[in-house]
Amino acid sequence: MGSDAAMSPKITVELLRQLRQAMRNTKYIAEPIQAYIVPSGDAHQSEYIAPCDCRREFICGFNGSAGTAIVTEKHAAMWTDGRYFLQASQQMDNNWTLMKMGLKETLSQEDWLISVLPENSTVGVDPWIIAADQWKNMSKALASAGHSLVAVQDNLIDAIWMDRPTRPSTQLLTLGLGFTGLTWQDKMTALRSKMAERKISWFVATALDEIAWLFNLRGSDIEYNPVFFAYAIVGMNTIRLFVDIKRLAVPTVREHLQLDTPSKVELSIQTAPYESVFTELQAVCASLGPKEKVWISDKASCALMQVIPKTHRSPIPYTPLCLAKAVKNATEIQGMKMAHIKDAVALCELFAWLEKEIPKGTVTEISAADKAEELRSQQKDFVGLSFPSISSVGPNGAIIHYRPLPETNRTLSLNEIYLLDSGAQYIDGTTDVTRTMHFGSPSAYEKETFTYVLKGHIAVSAAIFPNGTKGHLLDSFARQALWESGLDYLHGTGHGVGCFLNVHEGPCGISYKTFADEPLEAGMIVSDEPGYYEDGLFGIRIENVVLVVPAKPKYNYRNKGSLTFEPLTLVPIQAKMVNTDLLTQKERDWVNEYHRQCRETIGAELERQGRKEAMDWLIRETQPIA
Amino acid sequence: MGSDAAMSPKITVELLRQLRQAMRNTKYIAEPIQAYIVPSGDAHQSEYIAPCDCRREFICGFNGSAGTAIVTEKHAAMWTDGRYFLQASQQMDNNWTLMKMGLKETLSQEDWLISVLPENSTVGVDPWIIAADQWKNMSKALASAGHSLVAVQDNLIDAIWMDRPTRPSTQLLTLGLGFTGLTWQDKMTALRSKMAERKISWFVATALDEIAWLFNLRGSDIEYNPVFFAYAIVGMNTIRLFVDIKRLAVPTVREHLQLDTPSKVELSIQTAPYESVFTELQAVCASLGPKEKVWISDKASCALMQVIPKTHRSPIPYTPLCLAKAVKNATEIQGMKMAHIKDAVALCELFAWLEKEIPKGTVTEISAADKAEELRSQQKDFVGLSFPSISSVGPNGAIIHYRPLPETNRTLSLNEIYLLDSGAQYIDGTTDVTRTMHFGSPSAYEKETFTYVLKGHIAVSAAIFPNGTKGHLLDSFARQALWESGLDYLHGTGHGVGCFLNVHEGPCGISYKTFADEPLEAGMIVSDEPGYYEDGLFGIRIENVVLVVPAKPKYNYRNKGSLTFEPLTLVPIQAKMVNTDLLTQKERDWVNEYHRQCRETIGAELERQGRKEAMDWLIRETQPIA
Repeated sequence: MGSDAAMSPKITVELLRQLRQAMRNTKYIAEPIQAYIVPSGDAHQSEYIAPCDCRREFICGFNGSAGTAIVTEKHAAMWTDGRYFLQASQQMDNNWTLMKMGLKETLSQEDWLISVLPENSTVGVDPWIIAADQWKNMSKALASAGHSLVAVQDNLIDAIWMDRPTRPSTQLLTLGLGFTGLTWQDKMTALRSKMAERKISWFVATALDEIAWLFNLRGSDIEYNPVFFAYAIVGMNTIRLFVDIKRLAVPTVREHLQLDTPSKVELSIQTAPYESVFTELQAVCASLGPKEKVWISDKASCALMQVIPKTHRSPIPYTPLCLAKAVKNATEIQGMKMAHIKDAVALCELFAWLEKEIPKGTVTEISAADKAEELRSQQKDFVGLSFPSISSVGPNGAIIHYRPLPETNRTLSLNEIYLLDSGAQYIDGTTDVTRTMHFGSPSAYEKETFTYVLKGHIAVSAAIFPNGTKGHLLDSFARQALWESGLDYLHGTGHGVGCFLNVHEGPCGISYKTFADEPLEAGMIVSDEPGYYEDGLFGIRIENVVLVVPAKPKYNYRNKGSLTFEPLTLVPIQAKMVNTDLLTQKERDWVNEYHRQCRETIGAELERQGRKEAMDWLIRETQPIA
Repeated sequence: MGSDAAMSPKITVELLRQLRQAMRNTKYIAEPIQAYIVPSGDAHQSEYIAPCDCRREFICGFNGSAGTAIVTEKHAAMWTDGRYFLQASQQMDNNWTLMKMGLKETLSQEDWLISVLPENSTVGVDPWIIAADQWKNMSKALASAGHSLVAVQDNLIDAIWMDRPTRPSTQLLTLGLGFTGLTWQDKMTALRSKMAERKISWFVATALDEIAWLFNLRGSDIEYNPVFFAYAIVGMNTIRLFVDIKRLAVPTVREHLQLDTPSKVELSIQTAPYESVFTELQAVCASLGPKEKVWISDKASCALMQVIPKTHRSPIPYTPLCLAKAVKNATEIQGMKMAHIKDAVALCELFAWLEKEIPKGTVTEISAADKAEELRSQQKDFVGLSFPSISSVGPNGAIIHYRPLPETNRTLSLNEIYLLDSGAQYIDGTTDVTRTMHFGSPSAYEKETFTYVLKGHIAVSAAIFPNGTKGHLLDSFARQALWESGLDYLHGTGHGVGCFLNVHEGPCGISYKTFADEPLEAGMIVSDEPGYYEDGLFGIRIENVVLVVPAKPKYNYRNKGSLTFEPLTLVPIQAKMVNTDLLTQKERDWVNEYHRQCRETIGAELERQGRKEAMDWLIRETQPIA
């Protein structure tokens, strides 16, 4: 029933009435506001959010990962992108207007507000869940039209959300040197030396994965992301950690953080409740000398950003933690390799099982995804999935962010392509892999397009490029073969991957969108996942997680050095789907060498685990292609 | 002597004393200023400037195309980029500090000013020659440190420049429909419909090439660029052209602009002196209704930008003229093709001549460039060069923006590579072509690197890509073969090319720098010019001007359509320099098909012109490669 409800529209008449009442209620705001913005995120601008933060879903019914709702006296509108047009239109009732982002005729939030608001209107937003840079843009646009944007301290959705879940406060997991390679004290010292270098007195950490990484702690407050709700403020002699205090009662956590026996005064952690970050940051700012500067991410909440007086504020697109976290150390790389070996074992088992079971007609998208999770969970140090599995058959594969639901669930067959994009969190690393398989006889067209995608995958994976190259410069390599035949795919080619952290992380990536990505460096880990999608028919994607490693080409121009990628994902790519005539000799060699590695590395582990059927499957699937 | 002087430093003691006196002189400014900025450009942000606008060169001696000088009470510093470090250090005396842009340790202009100025300083600049966006950034940075940026109306360099040349006012050339494909009246109507679409009341044209294009007029006020000093202000019923009035006395010009017999009132041009644009724009702005908006380029001068009240100002990165000009119509394309045929005839002649003359040891970089100009000037409708020829032998070829001078002039020989990057203005079009030749026996390494550059050139030229793709997404195709061998080149791959206009024009290009380039469209014309430079040894570059044309690949994803390039430049690429083993069959086919076109098209014209030696050379140089 729950799932069924997800696809019928949420009835919002009464909720909107209540929200509009709240917008006029002097309990929350001195003067009535004419519009209220409900952004998607939480106070940390997380990609995945906890149930208590699903305010936009609560008010409009749409539960996709991206979307902003705005309610005025008379209108209610919700902006989302092309991935979600269908889903949003199904989940929202007709009190809501769907604003399709990316279409030329669609007004931006600012322009829409200006078009519907009476003169001199006031627009409200919770300053904790709007990012500082978004606040700035919105505020400027509204001001230019004579309106004003105001911070409403009490969240008006929370005010009308009777059964709002409480903020999770799960048990914290401490990670030792064997997993992290660096103690949190080492990381703190490195952070402070970056601060000293740039003459920064304080750093405010607001992104949950950065805080988890810094303290070598993990939580499970948010599904798929092993993070916990917290803030941190770091000075040259001070560390303040803001977190639900009862989580710190556990002896292992106290010892890990040296709460009772700090080794040095500058490494002594002062803990305080999660909510007190605001007043503590105020106190820090009140004591600042005239030239002291505070680092904070420009994606931090407007509420925290505005606590820091402008003269002391130094907003940055990528924090030193984000940059340090992206370059994995030897221990993290070793962990990621282990995690990918275990993950490949589970997938080899899955595919061997699917081959056997599909002809019986009993395997569905949901049961295949469940089986994959079950097999992964048998592996050592498994924690959970790293994102909802995209398990899709035939036409469902063309829906890029598909997630099987009972009413869309297709049965795997010998006639349709199966695309599985899935991954897991292990204590030693995070995985994310896509394989596209045909269990019968693929058509010539399916093979042709699969082969173009494979050529793109190889072009990125085997690329050699100078040190300092940004990932977006590699994106076209993934598309070249598709473009030559008039084809393309409408998503980026790769994203950064955390180590037992978020499966999507900055600051690097491979995309045609020229966001401010940082140059690729040896030790960074990204995905390589070109695709091709034929609406109503099938979807193809081939995704490996790859490690940036030094390359040693023939020459070394200006001593700059070169880089390339080493695949961490070691799962066979289905040779049956390849039209080998379309591959160059170099590409055939790449496939054969990749399969040799799969057989050697995963074979050894399958052997060790005594998983014979998967072993037979692996051996067969890694035969060299001619 | 003149050229010799160019490389000995200019003595600036007395000039700096006079400038500093002017900085305190109440004749120019109410209160003394503590620093004065001397930007590179003119009031139109032109890339090439007239002698009267070479103020930065006048004050410091450095005559490169990019550089900003700043003089304070005690210091004088000049910022330029890597192309010019050597030249600037040779041209400036030791009163000047060379600020090497792009090096980590080099302070920005803002940071340097903040580091040297006393508290509460005032920094002056001529608001006419600083772009509005640069003013904004500089002003903000100075304000944050307690200083202020002020507009000094009288240019202080002009005040001390005794023999400053007068502003050129050359004869205007009118272009008929046979060259432009559209009357200026058509262009005006199209501009106004863009304005109406975006509810814009006025448009201020400040870029010289946009004004020349709009009115189908050309001039020769600036070397290499067939433009003339002017401004235009266009309203829905008004056209104001600001230009030295005596240029309009010529009957052909009066008739072309219909100054005496306007066909319709809204197409009647009101002319006014060049200098009166400021007061006229003030008058226009004074009469604006409350919601009226004025379009102006964000690269316009700060002086003009600030005339427009903020509420009426609508600054844009690319004006509608810039965008319309970039997409060439059928007549312009035909003209560009004709210009490139004539240009190729001249180059075939040149290379045939060089082959004969080089063994005698009498040809130098300068005489070869002169010969190229002489041969071009024999072609129909030749106007002049489109930029200073880069004629470089051996190690000089590695200096990317090299221009031969008597003291650097090398003799062409059978032992060193010769790189010639040159182009011309013809009334029907603009050319820009680079060929790299060896007249003896190239080494294996020279051939290897030339072949990588050729592979990059072909990869771009033959690329098929979806409609709407931005040029920067193609840049890596040009580098892939070099990168694979650990090599690279430190410049972009291509720039827009005007039609009998500037050889460098926006808004499209092919570069790793992700400037805000506009998507490529059929009819746009860009250069394709990868290279490789071995410091102290040689330089290689292969440059064609190419036209964006529709492509018809096998499929048509989402009916988006595809594009590719058609070479307009038709000059053989020296087969002797190619290591054919490194080419794929597709690349060999491309070379042979390209040479077939050269032979067919240029051969016919050589035949027609009766140029037998060049014909023999062409036939030999276009033999298919195996």
